[in-house]
Amino acid sequence: MIDYDRYDRIRAVQWQGDALRLLDQRVLPLRTEFITCATADEVAAAIRNLTVRGAPAIGIAAAYGVALAAKAAADAATGLVHADALRDAFSVLRASRPTAVNLFWALDRMARVLGEAVSAERMEHEAIAIEREDLAANRHMGELGAALIAPDSGVLTHCNTGSLATAGFGTALGVIRAAYAQGRLARVFNTETRPWLQGTRLTAWELLTDGIPAKLIADSAASHLMSTGAVQWVIVGADRIAANGDTANKIGTLQLAVAARHFGAKFMVVAPSSTVDMAMPHGRDIHIELREPKELLEHAGQRVAAEGVDAWNPVFDVAPAELIDAIVTERGVIERPDAAKMSGMFGSA
Amino acid sequence: MIDYDRYDRIRAVQWQGDALRLLDQRVLPLRTEFITCATADEVAAAIRNLTVRGAPAIGIAAAYGVALAAKAAADAATGLVHADALRDAFSVLRASRPTAVNLFWALDRMARVLGEAVSAERMEHEAIAIEREDLAANRHMGELGAALIAPDSGVLTHCNTGSLATAGFGTALGVIRAAYAQGRLARVFNTETRPWLQGTRLTAWELLTDGIPAKLIADSAASHLMSTGAVQWVIVGADRIAANGDTANKIGTLQLAVAARHFGAKFMVVAPSSTVDMAMPHGRDIHIELREPKELLEHAGQRVAAEGVDAWNPVFDVAPAELIDAIVTERGVIERPDAAKMSGMFGSA
Repeated sequence: MIDYDRYDRIRAVQWQGDALRLLDQRVLPLRTEFITCATADEVAAAIRNLTVRGAPAIGIAAAYGVALAAKAAADAATGLVHADALRDAFSVLRASRPTAVNLFWALDRMARVLGEAVSAERMEHEAIAIEREDLAANRHMGELGAALIAPDSGVLTHCNTGSLATAGFGTALGVIRAAYAQGRLARVFNTETRPWLQGTRLTAWELLTDGIPAKLIADSAASHLMSTGAVQWVIVGADRIAANGDTANKIGTLQLAVAARHFGAKFMVVAPSSTVDMAMPHGRDIHIELREPKELLEHAGQRVAAEGVDAWNPVFDVAPAELIDAIVTERGVIERPDAAKMSGMFGSA
Repeated sequence: MIDYDRYDRIRAVQWQGDALRLLDQRVLPLRTEFITCATADEVAAAIRNLTVRGAPAIGIAAAYGVALAAKAAADAATGLVHADALRDAFSVLRASRPTAVNLFWALDRMARVLGEAVSAERMEHEAIAIEREDLAANRHMGELGAALIAPDSGVLTHCNTGSLATAGFGTALGVIRAAYAQGRLARVFNTETRPWLQGTRLTAWELLTDGIPAKLIADSAASHLMSTGAVQWVIVGADRIAANGDTANKIGTLQLAVAARHFGAKFMVVAPSSTVDMAMPHGRDIHIELREPKELLEHAGQRVAAEGVDAWNPVFDVAPAELIDAIVTERGVIERPDAAKMSGMFGSA
């Protein structure tokens, strides 16, 4: 049995009934600070500026953003809110980040509840349901993914996919937690994940908090590490999984998938079904967010490159299905994913 | 004709007759500061702490370190120095860094001149010759390497292999400079090169100084970049080339070689023959330097990871010969290197 409670000490997204409290992931792990959002606009800003990040956590936060807008717009007497009154909230949240589909999935789900008019309370309950279902999905995926890992394995993960990126427990990090709890893991490595250092700052901290012995590596050391035979599984989360299994995730994921295949390590994607976008036939159609060059040119507000240096800063890439050995969602495991297996599990768009 | 003078404005290693002046690469490009070394010990410290870095530059600096020791130990009347008096200088320099063979090559060359006793002036001339030959080799390699690149190509380089890493002009960056001067390059990219950011700080600055339009990328974005078709050649330097063509170079080189092969880009290694180690049969025998975890855990002296996080920080890796399309030295080009072609060009150990 996995002691899930020990992993619930970190909660990135905290609904407070009349506000959304977010653990500020920009200053972790050195400072533990919270931002409180009272409006959908404030939630959208927090998504855009990475106070809250991680595909599932973004979706959950956006749903609560809609719930906040619904409360504000509700008729004082009836408690009802009309769809028209939420149009701006939906649109500002929808524009906050482009790549992770969980954001759009959560907003679409909130919109479906809305209809013409509905009580603000019903909207709040839907957002709470989205959060609870994500936590349950993560726990289930942890068990499904861990079952794929042979005893005495080494694993490598990328970016942050833990409690901070989700409602709790995590996706790829949930699988690592479950596998570690089951005694399957001899070695755990995580990348620093440039430029935003989600690995150094967030994943390394979560693993430390868990008491799981792990080593941080430079992103560029992954191939060298794999060449030593220390890694049996590369395990990552996802921001969007296309209908053929192609997977968009943090920049560097493609590099890890290519290297894993070259060195004979296996490659696992772990994400809730809300990350699957059956309307997107191929990964090549997924919009890859480009962020500002200064994320590469500065460190902590201090210039590192010479003035005048330019940078190209895509923050996601797409690992093609043929490099993926397993996609794990709460609905089950798809090995060697392709369009037929994906539509068998997720239906068509 | 390439206007070499324009590339000679940056000189990392400056012999001053009685001291060695080193451009401090730890604080570039934000500050231009010099360190002056008056003894072999000071030169060894500057190599160890990365004031001077880059395989050829390390070799040149070490040779001047021996020249300094010879001047200090020379008999006032005869100007002669005895081998015994230089034993400590050789040994402290030899222990300064383990991976780049140019260091050992330069020290061996200085030792061969020495014999039983020789004038300190003769030692100084040998060090000057090592420096001059490196510059000439770089210019020749630039032309040889550029000739392999078709017009309208895109290139990606890693780490710093320019004027700062050599006597001048550079190895891989020399090829890029020559190819750009010949109008062959449509796109130039360079990696930031974690953890020490040689790419962000040094290569991007050299390219900017040259007026070569370039874009900096995160190390982990290289595969994504290659998947777009923007890169025809990955061009890197080397710290040691084994007798079968396996090449040790900055951490992340292996990842680039694997990705280049996967995405159909070609992979070129550019290094003077002083980097070839025919006594090392395979790359797997090359000693890979591990540096302190704090290079990953801190930025500019400021902690980034939580206290207690551990890291694995190898700073080189080995690209196997089968992933290399061309090795360019001043002696010529070896395409698809193997042991037979290597011993044909470089003899046996």
